Amino acid sequence: MHEKNPDAAVHVTGPLARFTAQCRWQDVPEAVRHEARRSLMNFFAVALAPAHDPTLDIALRTYARYSANDRATVIGRRARVDILTAAALNAMAANVYDFDDTHHPTIIHPTAPVAPALFALAEERPMRGEDLLLAFVLGVEAACRIGNAMSPEHYARGWHITSTCGVFGSALAVGKRLGLGEQALTWALASAAVQAGGLVETLGTMAKSVSVGNAARNGLLSALLAEEGFDGPPCALEGERGYLRVAASSPDIAPVAQDLGTRWEILNNTYKPYPCGVVLNPVIEACLDLSRDERYQRAGVGSVQSVLLVGHPLLRQRTDRPGIRTGRQSQVSAQHAVAAALVRGRAGLDEFSDEAVAEPALRALGERVRFRDDEACSVDAVQVRVELADGQVLVRDIEAAQGSRARPLSDAALEDKLRTLCRHGGSGVDAERLIAAVWELEQAPDAAQVIRLAAA
Amino acid sequence: MHEKNPDAAVHVTGPLARFTAQCRWQDVPEAVRHEARRSLMNFFAVALAPAHDPTLDIALRTYARYSANDRATVIGRRARVDILTAAALNAMAANVYDFDDTHHPTIIHPTAPVAPALFALAEERPMRGEDLLLAFVLGVEAACRIGNAMSPEHYARGWHITSTCGVFGSALAVGKRLGLGEQALTWALASAAVQAGGLVETLGTMAKSVSVGNAARNGLLSALLAEEGFDGPPCALEGERGYLRVAASSPDIAPVAQDLGTRWEILNNTYKPYPCGVVLNPVIEACLDLSRDERYQRAGVGSVQSVLLVGHPLLRQRTDRPGIRTGRQSQVSAQHAVAAALVRGRAGLDEFSDEAVAEPALRALGERVRFRDDEACSVDAVQVRVELADGQVLVRDIEAAQGSRARPLSDAALEDKLRTLCRHGGSGVDAERLIAAVWELEQAPDAAQVIRLAAA
Repeated sequence: MHEKNPDAAVHVTGPLARFTAQCRWQDVPEAVRHEARRSLMNFFAVALAPAHDPTLDIALRTYARYSANDRATVIGRRARVDILTAAALNAMAANVYDFDDTHHPTIIHPTAPVAPALFALAEERPMRGEDLLLAFVLGVEAACRIGNAMSPEHYARGWHITSTCGVFGSALAVGKRLGLGEQALTWALASAAVQAGGLVETLGTMAKSVSVGNAARNGLLSALLAEEGFDGPPCALEGERGYLRVAASSPDIAPVAQDLGTRWEILNNTYKPYPCGVVLNPVIEACLDLSRDERYQRAGVGSVQSVLLVGHPLLRQRTDRPGIRTGRQSQVSAQHAVAAALVRGRAGLDEFSDEAVAEPALRALGERVRFRDDEACSVDAVQVRVELADGQVLVRDIEAAQGSRARPLSDAALEDKLRTLCRHGGSGVDAERLIAAVWELEQAPDAAQVIRLAAA
Repeated sequence: MHEKNPDAAVHVTGPLARFTAQCRWQDVPEAVRHEARRSLMNFFAVALAPAHDPTLDIALRTYARYSANDRATVIGRRARVDILTAAALNAMAANVYDFDDTHHPTIIHPTAPVAPALFALAEERPMRGEDLLLAFVLGVEAACRIGNAMSPEHYARGWHITSTCGVFGSALAVGKRLGLGEQALTWALASAAVQAGGLVETLGTMAKSVSVGNAARNGLLSALLAEEGFDGPPCALEGERGYLRVAASSPDIAPVAQDLGTRWEILNNTYKPYPCGVVLNPVIEACLDLSRDERYQRAGVGSVQSVLLVGHPLLRQRTDRPGIRTGRQSQVSAQHAVAAALVRGRAGLDEFSDEAVAEPALRALGERVRFRDDEACSVDAVQVRVELADGQVLVRDIEAAQGSRARPLSDAALEDKLRTLCRHGGSGVDAERLIAAVWELEQAPDAAQVIRLAAA
């Protein structure tokens, strides 16, 4: 075969496996350690929310029939299942509302596939909190670097990048905790590579959750197989028929293994303040602020003539969705987001539910939303102009929304997110104990204690 | 997004699901029914062979730790596992030696992903042999049609087509047996679509077997989820971000749902007489015939000066592999195949083992093999010219090898294949009873009885 790529001689599977095998906790800077704790705080927050969600209900009911034992916790539930099943269900839970973390620029949700596999393993093979954190950081690193190599083409083509890249992160994270060496980690990556799947076409349906669950479960399985000597080819990522070349036309392969230990991808992780597509963040922030404006409150929502959104063309392309009918669809509808924020003054999970979508006041206001493209505007920014019946125009400019890389969610905001979503889930989990345990994970002698605090 | 494809308005997911839901056994012609039985005969033959293979040993050991119960048979073994696990392990067993059936032109091995899912289901939910056969035919139909739509690009790019397309076949076959309607079958296809994976890069390693096992297991899981109401998008195959467009650049979508019920893909299925890449079939047949030639036997193998293979360029491109070191590699090495057939006069699994590869006489003869491309030659044909020390040249021409579509393996040859491989596996299975049960499956009141005959 002719070479497809100038990178043909570059090897990354081995170097990535070697780095993963060799990296120690003392090699990980404090900023990276803290971002790992923040990612896990956000993970428990979002995984506790769907404690009564039908997607999770069906998955739990079906998967539990094929669960071998009750060694592992299902977050927000009373059920206990085997570790492969727990990894799948907890990954689904963390991602089902698309409220989980977002790595830039890949838009991978990196924690959902990696953390559940590690916490499940911790319930079968006890490990210290420090060891779980190290493995977690390394798994996220691998998933995001593999995603970087194929971005933006891979997702644009239709691959659900959280699922496809997540399985590699889960495999390496678990393999690290199993103490696998370079060769066995290479095998784990190979068994992960043949299990990478997931389609953008399924967003907004239950089927999406299968691939997110698989990313965690099958990464764990791949590492367990490698531990037993189940082999694979040496270059599952960069080989002529390796995953990177098969799932992307022009992968940028070399950076996958460059600056390992000095550049940390978890520092590009962000957390959503609202359960929507990230491009809606500045819109919602502006509308929430407007909803507290005295002039708006005096005039009342009935006096709104129009709402103009001046933003990057992507805002219109991704979120100009009038006439939506489900809570799922509302998460990517600017019309709905504007209406929810202005009418209710809130933008939590309750505002992106089937019930909220059916509310006449929200539908009426949504019909008054207009867009104006401004190429010069950043995707993190927006100007919202609300015209009232008396001719007044209220204007809000957001330069960088909360939850963007420029204005990250504070630790306190992450704690609040956990409290709110824990309440939303209604599982009865003690949010304060869980929050404390996540911040103190590094010192925990038994990491599994933390996930057990998240059981109903 | 602009349309990638003139087929943009064509819908196939729904029509394929509808046909699957509606098709009855009386709609299936006798030739198709018989080919289904032949496919299952070959399936049991190849699945019985690796009863002591390390790939299966490790997979069984690892997977069994996460098996919920002992309801299902593992072919050729004493162990019993849950139905998801059995589906995976039996699919792996059927395919691990690449000795299973081959659909043309996709080169999908269609039975390995589909039959194990159905036999596993039959052990949990009793079904008649006739019902299993109908579902099997429909599953094979779907997998091969989906493969046709993406061939040859999909495999050439590096996707392991048996794995990627097999999961759709397994999902529809099981969904048919669960009595799902069109909508639920559409959902099953969606959950299958997010689980389609597998890489050519892993051929020759254990990792390949993971994706083949997943094709059976995850198709079964997808149908079980759909039965519970787990939903998906309506066009998981042909949607703008559906599997066909994501995993192939120019899929030929419309034929997936054309002539359903009149054109049957299982009639394009073939069975290998030798455990090698199919392009080696005519080479081996010629060499086996030469090994019985009186002049060759008089001169002795030591007198062979050269062996010239005159064939289609693909023969050289795929099998010119001197200096191989493992039994796995020998399956795609013309040098080894020629030597094994001429030196031993046999070409069974023992001739494509690590031991055979290490044999000095075979290595010496392999070094004398030469190729000559002939574009006019069919891939099913070859001319083999053996030059002896005394100047004699023995020539054999094969127009179409046994096992090709032009010269299919006879029913008796398939029975013999089962007997031979059953003996090779050494599991103590009663081959004669199993052979009889497969031929009589259509009349069986309980299909699961057949797979139970294949337990050690």
